[in-house]
Parts: sequence; structure tokens; C-alpha cells
Amino acid sequence: MRPQAFVEAIAEMKLTNAALVDCTAEQSIVDAYPAFINANLHIVTPNKRANVLPWRRYEALKALLDRRQKHFLYETNVGAGLPVMSTLRDLIASGDEVLKIEGILSGTLSYLFNTYDGSVPFGELVRQARELGLTEPDPRDDLSGEDVARKLLILAREIGLRMDIQQVRVHSLVPSTLRGGAFSPRFFREFARYDAEMAKRLEVARARGHVLRYVGTLEHNHARAILQECPATHPLASATGSDNIIAFTTKRYSRTPLVVQGPGAGADVTAMGVFSDILKLLHYLPE
Amino acid sequence: MRPQAFVEAIAEMKLTNAALVDCTAEQSIVDAYPAFINANLHIVTPNKRANVLPWRRYEALKALLDRRQKHFLYETNVGAGLPVMSTLRDLIASGDEVLKIEGILSGTLSYLFNTYDGSVPFGELVRQARELGLTEPDPRDDLSGEDVARKLLILAREIGLRMDIQQVRVHSLVPSTLRGGAFSPRFFREFARYDAEMAKRLEVARARGHVLRYVGTLEHNHARAILQECPATHPLASATGSDNIIAFTTKRYSRTPLVVQGPGAGADVTAMGVFSDILKLLHYLPE
Repeated sequence: MRPQAFVEAIAEMKLTNAALVDCTAEQSIVDAYPAFINANLHIVTPNKRANVLPWRRYEALKALLDRRQKHFLYETNVGAGLPVMSTLRDLIASGDEVLKIEGILSGTLSYLFNTYDGSVPFGELVRQARELGLTEPDPRDDLSGEDVARKLLILAREIGLRMDIQQVRVHSLVPSTLRGGAFSPRFFREFARYDAEMAKRLEVARARGHVLRYVGTLEHNHARAILQECPATHPLASATGSDNIIAFTTKRYSRTPLVVQGPGAGADVTAMGVFSDILKLLHYLPE
Repeated sequence: MRPQAFVEAIAEMKLTNAALVDCTAEQSIVDAYPAFINANLHIVTPNKRANVLPWRRYEALKALLDRRQKHFLYETNVGAGLPVMSTLRDLIASGDEVLKIEGILSGTLSYLFNTYDGSVPFGELVRQARELGLTEPDPRDDLSGEDVARKLLILAREIGLRMDIQQVRVHSLVPSTLRGGAFSPRFFREFARYDAEMAKRLEVARARGHVLRYVGTLEHNHARAILQECPATHPLASATGSDNIIAFTTKRYSRTPLVVQGPGAGADVTAMGVFSDILKLLHYLPE
């Protein structure tokens, strides 16, 4: 059924206190959100696409939600079931001021740099991770940093910044010559030519007692997703395995940040987060 | 004004959607909670005393809240402004099963063991911490582990365990001969006699590559607050300064836990947490 036909059927039912739970990653469903909202539905979703819409469309969606007094809940957009958006929202609502948000926001990139110690070349590590199901089918989707950039944009908009995805500075780990075309296992042969460069970066970091991490940072109205060195004492350095970790430095949490850490992807924890949002919606609605 | 006179004045006002915000640490106010609830007030508080009442009184309070359909919000009971209770509640509400809760739940004990490296004797470190205002006026209130035990009890009751404070196993860091009487600076002279014992524990831990931490653990329906060795890779080992840290291992967060970390005490972050609770209450109430 096309979304539009579905919306029409819903609208005819004249529901109150109903919600669309969009568990897809589809743009076509997001394009139909205004119609769902006009059909009197709240929206609960792990789908990030609405929150990264171009500013004008995003603004119009928020205005429509306001006008129709509908709730839009998307806790799982960043960190899946981890309490990231709710924590950020509580900080802001209670009058705190966010000074910096730093995070390891990709489980795949977390795994790769927590594991990468030079004993296995970086390209081979990516190949192994793909075989273990820890990357997207096309690992360039992870290595490009685009997913981290999208999450940074969502966090930026949550703290009230008027930002679009083009304004997030992203350092892609995919060499420019390897970015186009469909993915084939041939990719790894070409990618291996960059192993030495990565090994050198690791060596330099280690010489300073640092670790390499792919970090998303939001600070002074600027967002960047880059591979960087972190001292061992850095709040983000303690993540292990494929954990996500996110540190909020605020006016009140200024000396040491408020940190949330744990598995930030996976069907079970995401489902739990979506279900928590549905339960929250129940609290918000009149009985 | 005595609580009872205050309650009577409140009851006469016939308020709806009003709340008592108890920012004291007083038992007398907690004793008056039933009267406040009967006067139609919700309760928001950082005061831990209600949640550690003997089981029979605790159960009666919860039953009264249910009967009068009043909310009781106490996010700041554990970790102050950190999202501890809300995270635990979301996990449970969405059908997850808590297998283990481990935490460094005392900012003072966190500071002491994060700082203690043997260069300054342990007793001297406690004396310095007291001068810096990092301990209670009587540092035995921190060293006894009783505050950690109370927080464990609150967490235990939150996950549905029928538990009383006597059932929490607590290892006090105050030698039994020094527990009675009023505090005087003389305490430190006596306490210094136990420095060698602590130094020995640190040495043994270090020889194994471990750190010493005062940890509260809730597992298999048992609660304990003890000084223990943690491997450097332990989820709790990454806390620094006087941070609190709490790790939830659940059916869904089983391979690596969900971790919340940050400053867990202080007037500003506690006030923020209380205010967040008040805002949550607004969401819960009919308009």
C-alpha cells in the first residue's frame, strides 16, 4: 500500500490519540508525515530522515506538529535505546546550557578503532568486520562518516541550532578515488593501498600515549565528524567493543561531563527505545 | 511551622495538581508525606528517607500514592541530576530484565579511591578531602558506606525487590573502635593506624594490574557495598575525579552494560534534577 492510500484510510477512521510508529528507514514514509499529522496522528520513529530534512522542510514539519498539537518522538535516532535525546532534552528544559557534545556515535567506527592496534592492517580489519556483520553491506556507508554527521545534525537541531547537513564538516575515511560506483569485494584490494597511511597515524598517536577515535563534536555552533587522537584520560577513551559513548559538557556539568555509554545499535535495543517512546506518549496524552 | 500545621493549611486550600517539593533531608517531613498526599499533593523530592523507610511503611506509602493517584518523583535520590532512575524505569517499563546494577555511588568515595595512589597515606587523604569540603562534616558518614547502601536499597526497590536496609551487606571503612561518639579531629590520629592496611590492599591490587574502588552491587536479589578490586577494563574503572558511575547489565544490555557517568552530587545538578522532575510531573497531569 502506498503511504498516501494508507493515510487516507487512516484519516477516514477519525482516530484520537493514535500514533504512527514508523519503523522503516524510508524517505517516502517521511514525505507522508505531514499527511499523517493532518490525519491526527502522533509520530514515533527510529527513522532519522525527518530530522535531517533540509531546514525549510524540517521547520515546516515542526510548525505543523505544533499547530496540530502532535507529539514527535525519536529517542532512538541517536544511540538507539541509550538515553541520549531524553537526557539532552532534560538538560535544556531545566535551564542548563550545552557547551559541547562529543561522541563516538557509530558502533562500526567504535569497533574498528577500539580494535585497531596495528597487528591487522586497517583494510583487513574492515573486511573482517563486514564478514562479522558489523558494517553495512557497503562498508563505505560507515567509513564515510555520513551517519555520524546525520546524528550530529539531529543533536544540533535539538539544542536549537539552525543547521543543515552541508554545515557538518565530515572527514570521510574512504579515499576520494574509491567513493563512486557499486560496492564490490574489489574495494578491499584498492583500500589496502591506504593501510600504511593509517598505520602511520596510529603510530604517531601512540607515541604521544593517545588513542585514535572517530569522534563527532558539536561546539560553538559548529559540528565536525573526524578521526582524531584522544588522550587516554579523555571521557570518550573508555568506550569498548562497538559501544557508543556521548559526553555532554554543559554549564552545570562543566568540570567533568555527563556521559552515557553502551551498545548504540541493534534491533533489540532499538525496539526497546521505540517502545519506551510509545509509553512516554501515553503519559503525555489526556486520559 | 510544624509539618502538620502546614498540611492542614494546604488541605484547606483544596488544591488540584499541586505538589510538595521536599528539598529537605528531614525525617519529620517524610513522616508527614501521607498527610500531604491526603491533602491532594504530588511529591517531588531529593530526600532519600521515604524510599528507605522500613518495608511496611514504604509499602503503605506506595499504596496510598496509588489509591490517591498521586505521583512520587525522586530522580535525584541516586546520582543527583544524572539520568539513573529514569533510565532504570524505562528499561523495566519496556520489558527489559535487570541482571546486575553496579555503581560507584558516592562522590566522596569515588574521589578518595580515584586519588589514592599510595603517595599520600589514606587517612591523610581523607583529612585533605574534608578540608576541601568533599566529605560530610563527619567523614565517617561517607566512609561507613551507609549512603551507598541506601542508594542500593532504592535501586533494589525500584526493580521490585522486597528489601530492607538491613539486608544490604555493607563494608564500613571505619574501624569498629572508631565508630562511636562525636567526631573530633582526633579521629585522624587514630585512623592513621590503619593506613598500612590500606596501603597493602592497594599494593596487592596493583600487582594484579587492578584498581581499588568502593562499589555498590545489586545482583541475584542481593545487595552489597564493598571496597573491591576492579580490572582496568571494568566498566566502572573509567570514572574520574568525584564522578558517580553506574552500569546496568540487563537481558538486552548483556554483552556490555548501559553506563551513566558524571558528577553525582552538588546543589546545582541536584536542583536541576528536581526541576526536571517537576517538569515531568507537568507532562503527567491532565491539562
